[in-house]
Amino acid sequence: MTITTPLQPTDRSSLRRSKERGATDRQALYDVLLDGMFCHLGVVVDGSPLVLPTAYGVDLDRGSDGTLYLHGSVAARSVVAAPQQTVCVTITHVDGLVLARSAFHHSVNYRSAVIFDVPRLVTDPDEKLHALNRIVDHLVPGRSSSTRPPNRKELAKTSVLAISLTEASVKSRAGEANDEPEDVDLPYWTGVLPLRLAAGEPVTNPDCDLLVPAHIRTRANLLGAPS
Amino acid sequence: MTITTPLQPTDRSSLRRSKERGATDRQALYDVLLDGMFCHLGVVVDGSPLVLPTAYGVDLDRGSDGTLYLHGSVAARSVVAAPQQTVCVTITHVDGLVLARSAFHHSVNYRSAVIFDVPRLVTDPDEKLHALNRIVDHLVPGRSSSTRPPNRKELAKTSVLAISLTEASVKSRAGEANDEPEDVDLPYWTGVLPLRLAAGEPVTNPDCDLLVPAHIRTRANLLGAPS
Repeated sequence: MTITTPLQPTDRSSLRRSKERGATDRQALYDVLLDGMFCHLGVVVDGSPLVLPTAYGVDLDRGSDGTLYLHGSVAARSVVAAPQQTVCVTITHVDGLVLARSAFHHSVNYRSAVIFDVPRLVTDPDEKLHALNRIVDHLVPGRSSSTRPPNRKELAKTSVLAISLTEASVKSRAGEANDEPEDVDLPYWTGVLPLRLAAGEPVTNPDCDLLVPAHIRTRANLLGAPS
Repeated sequence: MTITTPLQPTDRSSLRRSKERGATDRQALYDVLLDGMFCHLGVVVDGSPLVLPTAYGVDLDRGSDGTLYLHGSVAARSVVAAPQQTVCVTITHVDGLVLARSAFHHSVNYRSAVIFDVPRLVTDPDEKLHALNRIVDHLVPGRSSSTRPPNRKELAKTSVLAISLTEASVKSRAGEANDEPEDVDLPYWTGVLPLRLAAGEPVTNPDCDLLVPAHIRTRANLLGAPS
């Protein structure tokens, strides 16, 4: 763990708590984004926060700092509200439960990124298709070329939001449990229970008689069984 | 999947999209809460949404509809902002990637709960300790009695929020991929890649010479390897 600052230290993206858990470099942000599959999108609707899970895609070569893409139905509240306001996109990986000798020092090993932006509604047809391919390929690399691409009607039903990766912070915790010096002789087991999102065996649809293709196997193996 | 309505159909907790994926009964909410370990808390800070991951505990017998507990440093922005406003707590389980023949029908099998409330800051010492025990025991059942309880100084550093489970909605998707009838003969594999949060082998701290206790083994086995 190193003492660092957020990527663009605005007031809201500056870490207040446990600053030593922040990461300054852009690669740390990209690593969290590339390693995840889902995010939580926060918007404000009628004065209240609304937090919804959704898939995402990334294009690190688009825009000055890279772009994150979200999609949704054109009628979804979160997508309708988003282009008119600052949104917060949070991606969290849980790596383990940190079980200290004291209840107070229980913690979680994790990596998380928080991104703020006023999203841009993607209207250019080429970028829209590109973004949707990125979202599908983010879930399973290579998948977009093993499906029927969206047709005009499907594209019209789908909104795509582009979010700049400019204003963001990354925070993480790793390693063993830390206790107060006076607690180390207490008779309680201490350690870490590793956690990870793991894939099971692919389940072929009953109406499909094709073998599981390489891009699905590769994705499953990449996630793999828990370490 | 059944056609249902949210638990307390206020405007913001009513599902707009894919209403057939909503669950009406309280048990569905409790199942999502009891099956998860982490949530995303959404608050509004200076007009912008802020979404942060955090652990939680539940006490289904407290309050008219049950209570969810969150905790944080007394200085944390999210905790400071929360008791003065409506917050949104979202819990999401990802169960699998749904890989259709068309890009458009790609989806995710998931269970998620969205809860709205103006949190109550827990000031009663007994309830505060109870809540913190619930949070620790939610991560690993039985853990709170195998640790040193928080002392007065640690309790003073920690804020606890109580959130009523009254206004909530539950949404889920399960099962195989669904394609348009005209796509079923396309030469693309279709099916589901199951996903789950899985535990690895517990890692004992280097300064601990105790054997991994039963409550940790039970938790690891409960999460287990991917199915």
